[in-house]
Amino acid sequence: MRHTITLKTSKREELVDITRQVEDFLGESGVQNGILSAYAQGATSAIMIQENWDESVQTDVINCLEKLIPRGVWLHDRQDGNGDSHLKAGFMGPSETIPIIDGKLGLSRWQNIFLCEFDGPRSQRKVVCTIIPGHL
Amino acid sequence: MRHTITLKTSKREELVDITRQVEDFLGESGVQNGILSAYAQGATSAIMIQENWDESVQTDVINCLEKLIPRGVWLHDRQDGNGDSHLKAGFMGPSETIPIIDGKLGLSRWQNIFLCEFDGPRSQRKVVCTIIPGHL
Amino acid sequence: MRHTITLKTSKREELVDITRQVEDFLGESGVQNGILSAYAQGATSAIMIQENWDESVQTDVINCLEKLIPRGVWLHDRQDGNGDSHLKAGFMGPSETIPIIDGKLGLSRWQNIFLCEFDGPRSQRKVVCTIIPGHL
Repeated sequence: MRHTITLKTSKREELVDITRQVEDFLGESGVQNGILSAYAQGATSAIMIQENWDESVQTDVINCLEKLIPRGVWLHDRQDGNGDSHLKAGFMGPSETIPIIDGKLGLSRWQNIFLCEFDGPRSQRKVVCTIIPGHL
Repeated sequence: MRHTITLKTSKREELVDITRQVEDFLGESGVQNGILSAYAQGATSAIMIQENWDESVQTDVINCLEKLIPRGVWLHDRQDGNGDSHLKAGFMGPSETIPIIDGKLGLSRWQNIFLCEFDGPRSQRKVVCTIIPGHL
Repeated sequence: MRHTITLKTSKREELVDITRQVEDFLGESGVQNGILSAYAQGATSAIMIQENWDESVQTDVINCLEKLIPRGVWLHDRQDGNGDSHLKAGFMGPSETIPIIDGKLGLSRWQNIFLCEFDGPRSQRKVVCTIIPGHL
Protein backbone atom coordinates (compact mmCIF):
# COMPACT_ATOMS: atom_id res chain seq x y z
CA MET A 1 0.00 0.00 0.00
CA ARG A 2 1.32 3.37 -0.93
CA HIS A 3 0.14 6.91 -0.35
CA THR A 4 1.81 10.20 -1.21
CA ILE A 5 1.29 13.09 1.19
CA THR A 6 1.47 16.43 -0.59
CA LEU A 7 2.05 19.60 1.38
CA LYS A 8 2.95 23.23 1.01
CA THR A 9 5.71 24.95 2.95
CA SER A 10 5.79 28.61 3.90
CA LYS A 11 9.37 29.43 4.92
CA ARG A 12 12.89 28.78 3.63
CA GLU A 13 13.44 26.38 6.51
CA GLU A 14 10.87 24.75 8.72
CA LEU A 15 9.72 21.45 10.16
CA VAL A 16 6.17 20.42 9.26
CA ASP A 17 4.49 17.76 11.40
CA ILE A 18 2.91 15.10 9.16
CA THR A 19 2.19 12.49 11.84
CA ARG A 20 -1.59 12.76 11.55
CA GLN A 21 -1.57 12.31 7.76
CA VAL A 22 0.66 9.24 8.10
CA GLU A 23 -1.59 7.84 10.86
CA ASP A 24 -4.68 8.42 8.72
CA PHE A 25 -3.15 6.48 5.83
CA LEU A 26 -2.18 3.63 8.16
CA GLY A 27 -5.69 3.56 9.63
CA GLU A 28 -7.31 3.36 6.21
CA SER A 29 -4.99 0.54 5.16
CA GLY A 30 -6.22 -1.70 7.96
CA VAL A 31 -2.71 -3.16 8.34
CA GLN A 32 -2.03 -4.34 11.89
CA ASN A 33 1.68 -5.25 11.81
CA GLY A 34 4.76 -4.60 9.69
CA ILE A 35 6.64 -1.43 8.81
CA LEU A 36 5.87 1.94 7.30
CA SER A 37 8.52 3.72 5.26
CA ALA A 38 8.28 7.52 4.94
CA TYR A 39 10.36 8.97 2.08
CA ALA A 40 10.76 12.68 1.25
CA GLN A 41 11.09 13.35 -2.47
CA GLY A 42 13.23 16.41 -3.13
CA ALA A 43 16.98 16.76 -2.63
CA THR A 44 16.56 19.75 -0.27
CA SER A 45 14.02 18.17 2.09
CA ALA A 46 14.25 15.36 4.64
CA ILE A 47 12.34 13.32 7.20
CA MET A 48 13.09 13.72 10.91
CA ILE A 49 11.52 12.02 13.94
CA GLN A 50 11.37 14.65 16.66
CA GLU A 51 9.38 15.97 19.63
CA ASN A 52 6.43 18.30 19.03
CA TRP A 53 5.49 19.62 22.48
CA ASP A 54 5.75 23.18 21.19
CA GLU A 55 7.84 25.02 18.57
CA SER A 56 11.06 25.00 20.60
CA VAL A 57 12.76 21.86 19.30
CA GLN A 58 11.85 22.59 15.67
CA THR A 59 13.39 26.07 15.98
CA ASP A 60 16.45 24.60 17.68
CA VAL A 61 16.87 22.16 14.77
CA ILE A 62 16.88 25.00 12.23
CA ASN A 63 19.22 27.18 14.31
CA CYS A 64 21.63 24.37 15.09
CA LEU A 65 21.90 23.32 11.44
CA GLU A 66 22.43 26.95 10.44
CA LYS A 67 25.48 27.13 12.73
CA LEU A 68 26.91 23.79 11.62
CA ILE A 69 26.21 24.32 7.91
CA PRO A 70 26.26 28.07 7.19
CA ARG A 71 24.76 29.62 4.06
CA GLY A 72 26.68 31.03 1.12
CA VAL A 73 30.06 29.32 1.47
CA TRP A 74 29.63 26.22 -0.71
CA LEU A 75 30.73 25.37 -4.25
CA HIS A 76 27.14 24.55 -5.16
CA ASP A 77 26.05 28.10 -4.22
CA ARG A 78 27.41 29.30 -7.55
CA GLN A 79 24.67 27.30 -9.23
CA ASP A 80 21.53 27.55 -7.12
CA GLY A 81 22.49 29.44 -3.95
CA ASN A 82 21.25 26.47 -1.95
CA GLY A 83 24.41 24.52 -1.15
CA ASP A 84 23.52 24.47 2.55
CA SER A 85 20.05 23.10 1.76
CA HIS A 86 21.51 20.08 -0.04
CA LEU A 87 23.96 19.37 2.76
CA LYS A 88 21.26 19.57 5.44
CA ALA A 89 18.92 17.33 3.43
CA GLY A 90 21.59 14.72 2.70
CA PHE A 91 22.87 14.63 6.28
CA MET A 92 19.40 14.31 7.85
CA GLY A 93 18.28 11.85 5.14
CA PRO A 94 15.01 11.36 3.27
CA SER A 95 13.87 8.08 4.81
CA GLU A 96 12.71 6.75 8.15
CA THR A 97 11.19 3.33 8.77
CA ILE A 98 8.64 3.01 11.58
CA PRO A 99 7.20 -0.19 13.04
CA ILE A 100 3.44 -0.83 12.87
CA ILE A 101 2.17 -2.22 16.16
CA ASP A 102 -1.44 -3.42 16.45
CA GLY A 103 -2.59 -1.10 13.67
CA LYS A 104 -0.79 1.99 14.98
CA LEU A 105 2.54 3.69 14.35
CA GLY A 106 5.12 2.47 16.86
CA LEU A 107 6.14 6.00 17.83
CA SER A 108 6.78 6.75 21.50
CA ARG A 109 4.92 9.49 23.38
CA TRP A 110 7.19 12.31 22.17
CA GLN A 111 8.06 11.13 18.71
CA ASN A 112 6.42 12.82 15.74
CA ILE A 113 7.17 12.61 12.03
CA PHE A 114 8.33 15.83 10.40
CA LEU A 115 9.05 16.87 6.85
CA CYS A 116 12.12 19.14 7.02
CA GLU A 117 12.00 21.96 4.48
CA PHE A 118 15.49 23.34 3.79
CA ASP A 119 14.85 25.32 0.59
CA GLY A 120 11.33 26.69 0.70
CA PRO A 121 8.80 28.02 0.46
CA ARG A 122 7.53 25.39 -1.96
CA SER A 123 4.02 24.98 -3.30
CA GLN A 124 4.38 21.21 -3.32
CA ARG A 125 6.49 18.86 -1.23
CA LYS A 126 5.87 15.13 -1.41
CA VAL A 127 6.35 12.36 1.13
CA VAL A 128 5.83 8.83 -0.18
CA CYS A 129 4.51 6.45 2.51
CA THR A 130 4.77 2.72 1.84
CA ILE A 131 3.30 0.07 4.13
CA ILE A 132 4.83 -3.42 4.10
CA PRO A 133 2.62 -5.78 6.09
CA GLY A 134 4.30 -8.32 8.38
CA HIS A 135 3.23 -11.23 10.54
CA LEU A 136 3.11 -11.35 14.30
CA MET B 1 7.75 -10.94 13.37
CA ARG B 2 8.37 -8.33 15.99
CA HIS B 3 10.38 -8.21 19.18
CA THR B 4 11.02 -5.33 21.55
CA ILE B 5 14.42 -5.21 23.22
CA THR B 6 14.24 -3.49 26.60
CA LEU B 7 17.37 -2.18 28.23
CA LYS B 8 18.60 0.03 31.02
CA THR B 9 21.14 2.82 30.56
CA SER B 10 23.55 4.04 33.22
CA LYS B 11 24.89 7.42 32.03
CA ARG B 12 23.50 10.63 30.51
CA GLU B 13 25.11 9.71 27.21
CA GLU B 14 26.37 6.36 26.08
CA LEU B 15 26.24 3.82 23.26
CA VAL B 16 24.92 0.39 24.21
CA ASP B 17 25.70 -2.52 21.88
CA ILE B 18 22.51 -4.50 21.19
CA THR B 19 23.83 -6.62 18.30
CA ARG B 20 23.60 -9.91 20.19
CA GLN B 21 20.00 -9.34 21.24
CA VAL B 22 19.03 -8.50 17.66
CA GLU B 23 20.89 -11.57 16.36
CA ASP B 24 19.15 -13.78 18.93
CA PHE B 25 15.74 -12.54 17.80
CA LEU B 26 16.64 -13.15 14.16
CA GLY B 27 17.89 -16.65 14.97
CA GLU B 28 14.67 -17.54 16.79
CA SER B 29 12.57 -16.27 13.90
CA GLY B 30 14.14 -18.72 11.48
CA VAL B 31 13.91 -16.14 8.69
CA GLN B 32 16.63 -16.61 6.08
CA ASN B 33 16.24 -13.56 3.82
CA GLY B 34 14.65 -10.11 3.91
CA ILE B 35 15.24 -7.08 6.09
CA LEU B 36 15.28 -6.26 9.79
CA SER B 37 14.25 -2.80 10.95
CA ALA B 38 15.56 -1.57 14.31
CA TYR B 39 13.63 1.39 15.75
CA ALA B 40 14.47 3.26 18.97
CA GLN B 41 11.39 4.52 20.80
CA GLY B 42 12.14 7.72 22.72
CA ALA B 43 12.81 11.17 21.28
CA THR B 44 16.19 11.41 23.02
CA SER B 45 17.62 8.09 21.85
CA ALA B 46 18.73 6.79 18.47
CA ILE B 47 20.15 3.81 16.58
CA MET B 48 23.69 3.94 15.18
CA ILE B 49 25.67 1.31 13.28
CA GLN B 50 29.26 1.61 14.47
CA GLU B 51 32.47 -0.28 15.24
CA ASN B 52 32.88 -2.00 18.62
CA TRP B 53 36.52 -3.02 18.77
CA ASP B 54 36.88 -1.24 22.11
CA GLU B 55 35.34 1.82 23.77
CA SER B 56 37.21 4.38 21.66
CA VAL B 57 34.73 5.02 18.86
CA GLN B 58 31.74 5.15 21.22
CA THR B 59 33.52 7.75 23.35
CA ASP B 60 34.50 9.70 20.23
CA VAL B 61 30.83 9.74 19.15
CA ILE B 62 29.73 11.26 22.48
CA ASN B 63 32.59 13.79 22.53
CA CYS B 64 32.13 14.82 18.90
CA LEU B 65 28.40 15.38 19.32
CA GLU B 66 29.05 17.37 22.50
CA LYS B 67 31.24 19.79 20.53
CA LEU B 68 28.85 20.08 17.60
CA ILE B 69 25.71 20.34 19.74
CA PRO B 70 26.65 21.89 23.10
CA ARG B 71 24.47 21.68 26.21
CA GLY B 72 22.43 24.49 27.71
CA VAL B 73 22.08 26.89 24.77
CA TRP B 74 18.77 25.77 23.21
CA LEU B 75 15.23 27.13 23.40
CA HIS B 76 14.01 23.74 24.54
CA ASP B 77 16.34 23.85 27.57
CA ARG B 78 13.86 26.15 29.27
CA GLN B 79 11.44 23.25 29.39
CA ASP B 80 13.40 20.10 30.07
CA GLY B 81 17.09 21.05 30.04
CA ASN B 82 17.61 18.46 27.30
CA GLY B 83 17.57 20.46 24.07
CA ASP B 84 20.87 18.96 23.00
CA SER B 85 19.52 15.44 23.60
CA HIS B 86 16.63 16.01 21.19
CA LEU B 87 18.91 17.45 18.52
CA LYS B 88 21.36 14.56 18.76
CA ALA B 89 18.55 11.99 18.62
CA GLY B 90 16.83 13.62 15.64
CA PHE B 91 20.06 14.07 13.69
CA MET B 92 21.27 10.48 14.27
CA GLY B 93 17.77 9.08 13.70
CA PRO B 94 15.81 6.27 15.39
CA SER B 95 15.78 3.74 12.53
CA GLU B 96 18.22 1.56 10.63
CA THR B 97 17.29 -1.20 8.19
CA ILE B 98 19.67 -4.15 7.90
CA PRO B 99 19.61 -6.91 5.28
CA ILE B 100 19.10 -10.53 6.36
CA ILE B 101 21.47 -12.83 4.47
CA ASP B 102 21.16 -16.61 4.86
CA GLY B 103 19.61 -16.29 8.31
CA LYS B 104 22.14 -13.78 9.62
CA LEU B 105 22.35 -10.00 9.90
CA GLY B 106 24.14 -8.55 6.88
CA LEU B 107 26.54 -6.53 9.01
CA SER B 108 30.18 -6.36 7.98
CA ARG B 109 33.02 -7.43 10.29
CA TRP B 110 33.18 -4.08 12.14
CA GLN B 111 29.54 -3.05 12.13
CA ASN B 112 27.56 -3.38 15.33
CA ILE B 113 24.12 -2.07 16.27
CA PHE B 114 24.05 0.47 19.08
CA LEU B 115 21.29 2.17 21.00
CA CYS B 116 22.46 5.77 21.56
CA GLU B 117 21.37 7.18 24.91
CA PHE B 118 21.39 10.99 24.89
CA ASP B 119 19.31 11.75 28.01
CA GLY B 120 19.91 9.01 30.56
CA PRO B 121 20.25 7.23 32.77
CA ARG B 122 16.92 5.56 32.05
CA SER B 123 15.47 2.46 33.65
CA GLN B 124 13.84 1.42 30.41
CA ARG B 125 14.78 2.09 26.78
CA LYS B 126 13.01 0.21 24.02
CA VAL B 127 14.14 -0.85 20.56
CA VAL B 128 11.46 -2.36 18.35
CA CYS B 129 12.86 -4.94 15.90
CA THR B 130 10.67 -5.95 12.97
CA ILE B 131 11.58 -8.68 10.49
CA ILE B 132 10.11 -8.56 7.00
CA PRO B 133 10.85 -11.81 5.18
CA GLY B 134 11.87 -11.63 1.53
CA HIS B 135 12.55 -14.08 -1.26
CA LEU B 136 15.89 -14.93 -2.76
CA MET C 1 15.34 -10.39 -3.96
CA ARG C 2 18.82 -9.37 -3.05
CA HIS C 3 21.78 -8.09 -5.01
CA THR C 4 25.17 -6.91 -3.79
CA ILE C 5 26.78 -4.07 -5.72
CA THR C 6 30.57 -4.26 -5.52
CA LEU C 7 32.67 -1.23 -6.33
CA LYS C 8 36.15 0.17 -6.10
CA THR C 9 36.96 3.60 -4.65
CA SER C 10 39.92 5.74 -5.63
CA LYS C 11 40.30 8.41 -2.93
CA ARG C 12 40.30 8.61 0.86
CA GLU C 13 36.94 10.37 0.72
CA GLU C 14 34.51 10.51 -2.16
CA LEU C 15 30.88 9.99 -3.11
CA VAL C 16 30.25 7.35 -5.78
CA ASP C 17 26.92 7.43 -7.62
CA ILE C 18 25.39 3.94 -7.68
CA THR C 19 21.90 4.91 -8.88
CA ARG C 20 22.19 3.15 -12.22
CA GLN C 21 23.35 -0.13 -10.69
CA VAL C 22 20.45 -0.03 -8.22
CA GLU C 23 17.99 0.78 -11.03
CA ASP C 24 19.34 -2.09 -13.12
CA PHE C 25 18.78 -4.53 -10.27
CA LEU C 26 15.26 -3.23 -9.75
CA GLY C 27 14.52 -3.53 -13.47
CA GLU C 28 15.73 -7.13 -13.58
CA SER C 29 13.61 -8.04 -10.55
CA GLY C 30 10.41 -7.05 -12.33
CA VAL C 31 8.97 -5.79 -9.02
CA GLN C 32 6.46 -2.99 -9.51
CA ASN C 33 5.73 -1.80 -5.97
CA GLY C 34 7.24 -2.03 -2.52
CA ILE C 35 10.52 -0.80 -1.06
CA LEU C 36 14.22 -1.14 -1.82
CA SER C 37 16.72 -1.04 1.02
CA ALA C 38 20.30 -0.03 0.21
CA TYR C 39 22.83 -0.98 2.90
CA ALA C 40 26.56 -0.14 2.88
CA GLN C 41 28.69 -2.83 4.49
CA GLY C 42 31.80 -1.37 6.10
CA ALA C 43 31.98 0.79 9.22
CA THR C 44 33.72 3.65 7.37
CA SER C 45 31.27 3.95 4.48
CA ALA C 46 27.67 5.13 4.24
CA ILE C 47 24.73 5.69 1.93
CA MET C 48 23.58 9.22 1.11
CA ILE C 49 20.77 10.44 -1.13
CA GLN C 50 22.03 13.59 -2.82
CA GLU C 51 21.98 15.68 -6.00
CA ASN C 52 24.31 14.79 -8.89
CA TRP C 53 24.09 17.72 -11.32
CA ASP C 54 27.86 18.05 -11.24
CA GLU C 55 30.65 17.47 -8.70
CA SER C 56 29.85 20.49 -6.55
CA VAL C 57 27.55 18.99 -3.93
CA GLN C 58 29.68 15.88 -3.51
CA THR C 59 32.76 18.04 -2.89
CA ASP C 60 30.78 20.23 -0.49
CA VAL C 61 29.75 17.11 1.46
CA ILE C 62 33.40 16.04 1.90
CA ASN C 63 34.57 19.55 2.81
CA CYS C 64 31.72 20.20 5.23
CA LEU C 65 32.27 16.92 7.07
CA GLU C 66 36.01 17.63 7.24
CA LYS C 67 35.29 20.90 9.09
CA LEU C 68 32.71 19.37 11.43
CA ILE C 69 34.70 16.19 12.12
CA PRO C 70 38.43 16.98 11.73
CA ARG C 71 41.11 14.33 11.28
CA GLY C 72 43.61 13.22 13.87
CA VAL C 73 41.98 14.34 17.11
CA TRP C 74 40.05 11.20 18.15
CA LEU C 75 40.73 8.44 20.65
CA HIS C 76 40.30 5.86 17.91
CA ASP C 77 43.12 7.46 15.89
CA ARG C 78 45.61 5.73 18.17
CA GLN C 79 44.44 2.42 16.70
CA ASP C 80 43.73 2.94 13.02
CA GLY C 81 44.17 6.65 12.31
CA ASN C 82 40.62 6.70 11.00
CA GLY C 83 38.55 7.99 13.90
CA ASP C 84 37.00 10.66 11.71
CA SER C 85 36.01 8.04 9.12
CA HIS C 86 34.03 6.07 11.69
CA LEU C 87 32.26 9.18 12.98
CA LYS C 88 31.30 10.31 9.49
CA ALA C 89 30.04 6.84 8.56
CA GLY C 90 28.00 6.42 11.75
CA PHE C 91 26.48 9.90 11.54
CA MET C 92 25.49 9.58 7.87
CA GLY C 93 24.33 6.00 8.36
CA PRO C 94 24.61 2.86 6.20
CA SER C 95 20.95 2.45 5.21
CA GLU C 96 18.35 4.23 3.13
CA THR C 97 14.95 2.85 2.17
CA ILE C 98 13.47 3.98 -1.15
CA PRO C 99 9.93 3.42 -2.40
CA ILE C 100 9.36 1.43 -5.61
CA ILE C 101 6.71 3.11 -7.76
CA ASP C 102 5.44 1.37 -10.91
CA GLY C 103 8.67 -0.56 -11.36
CA LYS C 104 10.98 2.40 -10.78
CA LEU C 105 12.85 3.92 -7.86
CA GLY C 106 10.74 6.65 -6.23
CA LEU C 107 13.58 9.18 -6.36
CA SER C 108 12.77 12.75 -7.33
CA ARG C 109 14.46 14.54 -10.26
CA TRP C 110 17.55 15.53 -8.28
CA GLN C 111 17.92 12.59 -5.93
CA ASN C 112 20.65 10.07 -6.60
CA ILE C 113 22.01 7.23 -4.46
CA PHE C 114 25.63 7.55 -3.40
CA LEU C 115 28.05 5.31 -1.60
CA CYS C 116 30.11 7.58 0.69
CA GLU C 117 33.71 6.46 1.02
CA PHE C 118 35.32 7.86 4.17
CA ASP C 119 38.43 5.67 4.45
CA GLY C 120 39.56 4.75 0.97
CA PRO C 121 40.82 3.97 -1.48
CA ARG C 122 39.40 0.47 -1.21
CA SER C 123 39.52 -2.27 -3.80
CA GLN C 124 36.10 -3.52 -2.75
CA ARG C 125 33.12 -1.76 -1.18
CA LYS C 126 29.80 -3.53 -0.97
CA VAL C 127 26.24 -2.23 -0.98
CA VAL C 128 23.54 -4.83 -0.29
CA CYS C 129 20.26 -4.03 -2.06
CA THR C 130 17.14 -5.83 -0.88
CA ILE C 131 13.75 -5.52 -2.58
CA ILE C 132 10.63 -6.19 -0.53
CA PRO C 133 7.60 -6.34 -2.86
CA GLY C 134 4.40 -4.66 -1.73
CA HIS C 135 0.82 -4.40 -2.95
CA LEU C 136 -0.83 -1.36 -4.45
